[in-house]
Amino acid sequence: MSNRTEIATLGEFGLIKHLTEHIELKNPSTLKGVGDDAAVMSYGDKLTLVTTDLLLEGIHFDLMYVPLKHLGYKSAVVNFSDIYAMNGQPKQITLSLGISQRFCIEDLEEFYAGVRLACDIYGVDLVGGDTSASRTGLTISITCIGEGEPGKVVYRSGAKETDLICVSGDLGAAYMGLQLLEREKSVFKGEKDFAPDFSGKEYLLERQLKPEARKDIIRLLAEANVLPTSMMDVSDGLSSELLHIAQESHVGCRVYEDRIPIDYQTAAMAEQFNMNLVTAALNGGEDYELLFTVPLTDHEKVEAMEGVHVIGHITKPELGCYLQGRDGGEVELRAQGWNSLS
Amino acid sequence: MSNRTEIATLGEFGLIKHLTEHIELKNPSTLKGVGDDAAVMSYGDKLTLVTTDLLLEGIHFDLMYVPLKHLGYKSAVVNFSDIYAMNGQPKQITLSLGISQRFCIEDLEEFYAGVRLACDIYGVDLVGGDTSASRTGLTISITCIGEGEPGKVVYRSGAKETDLICVSGDLGAAYMGLQLLEREKSVFKGEKDFAPDFSGKEYLLERQLKPEARKDIIRLLAEANVLPTSMMDVSDGLSSELLHIAQESHVGCRVYEDRIPIDYQTAAMAEQFNMNLVTAALNGGEDYELLFTVPLTDHEKVEAMEGVHVIGHITKPELGCYLQGRDGGEVELRAQGWNSLS
Repeated sequence: MSNRTEIATLGEFGLIKHLTEHIELKNPSTLKGVGDDAAVMSYGDKLTLVTTDLLLEGIHFDLMYVPLKHLGYKSAVVNFSDIYAMNGQPKQITLSLGISQRFCIEDLEEFYAGVRLACDIYGVDLVGGDTSASRTGLTISITCIGEGEPGKVVYRSGAKETDLICVSGDLGAAYMGLQLLEREKSVFKGEKDFAPDFSGKEYLLERQLKPEARKDIIRLLAEANVLPTSMMDVSDGLSSELLHIAQESHVGCRVYEDRIPIDYQTAAMAEQFNMNLVTAALNGGEDYELLFTVPLTDHEKVEAMEGVHVIGHITKPELGCYLQGRDGGEVELRAQGWNSLS
Repeated sequence: MSNRTEIATLGEFGLIKHLTEHIELKNPSTLKGVGDDAAVMSYGDKLTLVTTDLLLEGIHFDLMYVPLKHLGYKSAVVNFSDIYAMNGQPKQITLSLGISQRFCIEDLEEFYAGVRLACDIYGVDLVGGDTSASRTGLTISITCIGEGEPGKVVYRSGAKETDLICVSGDLGAAYMGLQLLEREKSVFKGEKDFAPDFSGKEYLLERQLKPEARKDIIRLLAEANVLPTSMMDVSDGLSSELLHIAQESHVGCRVYEDRIPIDYQTAAMAEQFNMNLVTAALNGGEDYELLFTVPLTDHEKVEAMEGVHVIGHITKPELGCYLQGRDGGEVELRAQGWNSLS
């Protein structure tokens, strides 16, 4: 690091001030941001949504290949994604950081630049947080507060028999991006003049390092006057999320292998790694796509939506949760998603 | 630990479910708690307050002498304190934990028992969170959402010249409790049959290990129809907080040494440790008392309040911030409060 300022030169209050002094509040509901005991928001007749994520170095991210600005961007976006998954709009975030001595102020500026870029793009205010020393590594905790319309917040629990199961975008790419980064990291070890080869795989890297939340899908649904019966974001893998919806809604589900949307870069990478493509798409995680169910009567509307794919339908609970393969055989869905505690 | 269940036996989702299954929602404003992408709250015509704290093992707490139940209780209460410091009422919290393999499910149950006890006593709902593995130690991130009345939220920035400066309870005890625990820990090292001697010092330990937030003072103020012009909680030490109020309000202040409320156990301990008592009371931190300013016209009302002490007054900004000693000499206030980053 050529330009390094020790954090101790600013102190905790100085650091917070330094990192937050240029933050402009964008939402009329934000009355008071950083700089008091608590942020203050006013929500007239809206519902308030709150979600939180804890990200730990060595568990959720590896700074060997994740640039800090990207990490800041992703940390914010994954929280926005949770609010969209309720059919809400993210409005404010708080950001807490635990920082070991390995990091300097420039590092934190990079991280904040990513958070602020995400906030700018998604129209969210950074309204508070906490900053502390840490004995090891970087700890990131973000809480996002959002707004929902009464009667239009979508839970995981509303899926009904015969509802269509829809997913946005494509699946498995972020997971393949992670595999690619891990491979290049292990190749790199010990080598001096190492230049990783990512050509033709840019999409996979982008999906892993700089995911987006599907604000656009929420807008499309509203414009088409489609209110999903259930919804969540795909962070732990499609299988795991389908099982959540089935459990919370007391239903079963059938999804079809040939309907699962997969990008060609994901498919090529799986081939190259000799991995099962469907497993990657179903269990990979970190897709941050929206998984939702709609009444059968909305079939034409969702079929017409750019970036939305109908992948199956909801069944009676006693029929369980299955993937029907291209060969017609059925495989029971299992939550093999990423689990940091196992 | 005689009764140890590895966390891996439950998995992440199982763990969250296990830890949150008996949580009852207490506030009508809480529409949906744990178990979806986000919690949902409805706040009619109220203001929404949000505060967050990050607590890291080895920085903010030492599990050698802090029981996990106490730690859970304190982690929640320090967040409630921030909401009271805005003249608000805490209503919901989210709790995120990063957990290393050192901890078993019984440990987490202890921690949650403390959080839930605090929530029960203060009427707060636990509505969500995140749980993750951690490579080292315990990471705790709590976000608290509270409710404020329009026009009655109190910021740090409203203190006016001639306002009286008030503080609740007494100061320095939590700091002396920490010194006591640290001393007993260092004595303990290497000794086999060690029994720490805490007799006559119970109040200091309680202030350090199981602090309370001053909900009662907020009620007293409301009952007396006193709206402070500025307020914050004393978490980093009185000096540091007075300087925050002075800076945010663009004023100066005078506080008087003989007015600083100090418990006799704090004084006795300072004597025994040969420490400057006023320094401990001014810079110790973790008191979680309320520091606030009121117009001079409220003098009689605050003097009549049980547990409230008038310690000085607000001045013109050019007069700076000073402590007037018992001998009449003046010492400039400096923020020597606890700073994890320096």
